[in-house]
Amino acid sequence: MEIKEYGEFGLIKHLTEKFPLKNKSSLYGVGDDCAVIDVDPSEGKTVVTTDLLLEGVHFDLTYCPMRHLGYKACVVNFSDVYAMMGTPRQITVSLGISKRFKVEDLDELYAGMKLACDIYGVDLVGGDTSASMTGLTISITCIGVANDPVYRNGAKVNDLICVSGDLGAAYVGLQLLEREKAVYYQEYNDWKRNGAQGTMPVFKPKFEGKEYLLERQLKPEARKDIVAKLNEAGIKPTSMMDISDGLSSELLHICHQSKVGCRIYEERIPIDYQTAVQAEEFNLNVSTCALNGGEDYELLFTVPLAQSELIQQISGIRLIGHITDERLGAAMITRDGNSEITLQAQGWNAFASSESKK
Amino acid sequence: MEIKEYGEFGLIKHLTEKFPLKNKSSLYGVGDDCAVIDVDPSEGKTVVTTDLLLEGVHFDLTYCPMRHLGYKACVVNFSDVYAMMGTPRQITVSLGISKRFKVEDLDELYAGMKLACDIYGVDLVGGDTSASMTGLTISITCIGVANDPVYRNGAKVNDLICVSGDLGAAYVGLQLLEREKAVYYQEYNDWKRNGAQGTMPVFKPKFEGKEYLLERQLKPEARKDIVAKLNEAGIKPTSMMDISDGLSSELLHICHQSKVGCRIYEERIPIDYQTAVQAEEFNLNVSTCALNGGEDYELLFTVPLAQSELIQQISGIRLIGHITDERLGAAMITRDGNSEITLQAQGWNAFASSESKK
Repeated sequence: MEIKEYGEFGLIKHLTEKFPLKNKSSLYGVGDDCAVIDVDPSEGKTVVTTDLLLEGVHFDLTYCPMRHLGYKACVVNFSDVYAMMGTPRQITVSLGISKRFKVEDLDELYAGMKLACDIYGVDLVGGDTSASMTGLTISITCIGVANDPVYRNGAKVNDLICVSGDLGAAYVGLQLLEREKAVYYQEYNDWKRNGAQGTMPVFKPKFEGKEYLLERQLKPEARKDIVAKLNEAGIKPTSMMDISDGLSSELLHICHQSKVGCRIYEERIPIDYQTAVQAEEFNLNVSTCALNGGEDYELLFTVPLAQSELIQQISGIRLIGHITDERLGAAMITRDGNSEITLQAQGWNAFASSESKK
Repeated sequence: MEIKEYGEFGLIKHLTEKFPLKNKSSLYGVGDDCAVIDVDPSEGKTVVTTDLLLEGVHFDLTYCPMRHLGYKACVVNFSDVYAMMGTPRQITVSLGISKRFKVEDLDELYAGMKLACDIYGVDLVGGDTSASMTGLTISITCIGVANDPVYRNGAKVNDLICVSGDLGAAYVGLQLLEREKAVYYQEYNDWKRNGAQGTMPVFKPKFEGKEYLLERQLKPEARKDIVAKLNEAGIKPTSMMDISDGLSSELLHICHQSKVGCRIYEERIPIDYQTAVQAEEFNLNVSTCALNGGEDYELLFTVPLAQSELIQQISGIRLIGHITDERLGAAMITRDGNSEITLQAQGWNAFASSESKK
């Protein structure tokens, strides 16, 4: 079905009517000049984050299903709120949509958003919908509450550096998707060159046993569970952020803003087995994937040394190093223990080249 | 200067460091996973609005200077907050930037945003900056407070319908810009056809005496002053919204959401002299420009009949009609008083055609 058959307001109504408000603080949602939120001061401060996703830069619809895209677009925002030790409550969603998209595509996108909102307890309260000249544009703003927000600037010398989950899988998953995309186009071109007889032979991407890598890239989760566990254990990290641009880049943010240095241990960086196997197949250094790959949406945080035992009792958290004096810089001690590699922000610099990394 | 020389984080720092936080409620701005806002419950509820502006759809950089664009992109969001009888306090700004833009272009854009933020007392607290494949994308979310938000759904039978300022000028201004753009390209093509000798003769667009129309299109203001006057006079409108898609479309929103009808009088619609003259030159019906033109960013609201005298003492507000029973529908009584024209939402439907209206 063509989008123009709905018109702008009909389309908004169609897409958002499946999102009844769940949170007490969501007083008024879609349908007026503004959404209205009743912030309960006993819940703490209001936190706000926003992410812009552009087709061809941040996502590739060749292999990213609309439903997964909707889910991921929400989750990357929730992740920023959890990274303040907050709770996401509301989102606004703005879309720019080119003529090649049908209502059914948007239904899929919103189905993914609805799933994410349901799982994380978030309300869709507003947005803006517009035509675009080319491609799909998604801009999401997330509003949440944080009782006692944790910033990037509070890390102290001797604090322990912790990460949740494992790293590098999303990046390796992306390489896998890109490889199979290239194979597909090769087969397609071969078929065309040979006269394009009949229908093209069915293309079967080689993804068996690699589901974890794909899921990490296409349908990441935000670490709500880790924030809950830290709260339960009464641990307030001294600094925290989520890992969207790679461990290296994020650690440098914390060091820079906290005016400290750090040492992490290569052997302590958590890597999933599938990530390691696939990185080897690609001839990639798996530590480099973890340091510079990005899109892991795990939490990176620091806790005082005195909480060492407490933090080690929580499953899913790995101690990877410690904070040092600023003059010592930020470095990784290699697996053999003999050398230090200075950490560099080789995460995604979208402006550095015309080829996008993700 | 090329944007890639800064990198993403350097660019964000460069662009946002000229925006010191002004509001007490802006606890933490740019530089972490989230901005942090300390909502003072005595100030009322939190209101949130968002707007997505896409190059080639919402703006044309041929005649829209970057500085004006930055100003307008902010103001259209503030306007939505005032339309709830609120006060804008914070914005987040997300940009998608293609390679043809230089740092100097963004400096101009942010200079316009800074001017708007200074004039309206708003803080820039966050955002996202990314490369884009084509053109410029601007997504702004505005957060404000409203003591007692005014919705679109509260209009009652016999309420008076009011508008601030005058209507149709922004639309006529756009036609003027489009005409001069066409003339410019014609002169350019003529010069090329004649061998493109020397430099092209200087093009002088015919804008003398039409400054008001251009300003209404390129640098609109939000009606902060009207909200202040209503508050001073102790008037709480029963419904309110801002006019971004044309009077006709907005009145239908209020009627639909309030489950009422309306009658407005063509002769009461406020039209500026320049608008009328220029519309005639273009052979446009000036009432149609006011009803369907859009981008006026004036306030449309309803007040109880009992406040008729009070409202008429406020300068800059015009009574244009009244609310009726729903069964009577929404219509305009023509200038001669003899006939009724049913109002139709002919405002901007971005999905109806590939040619954008604004």
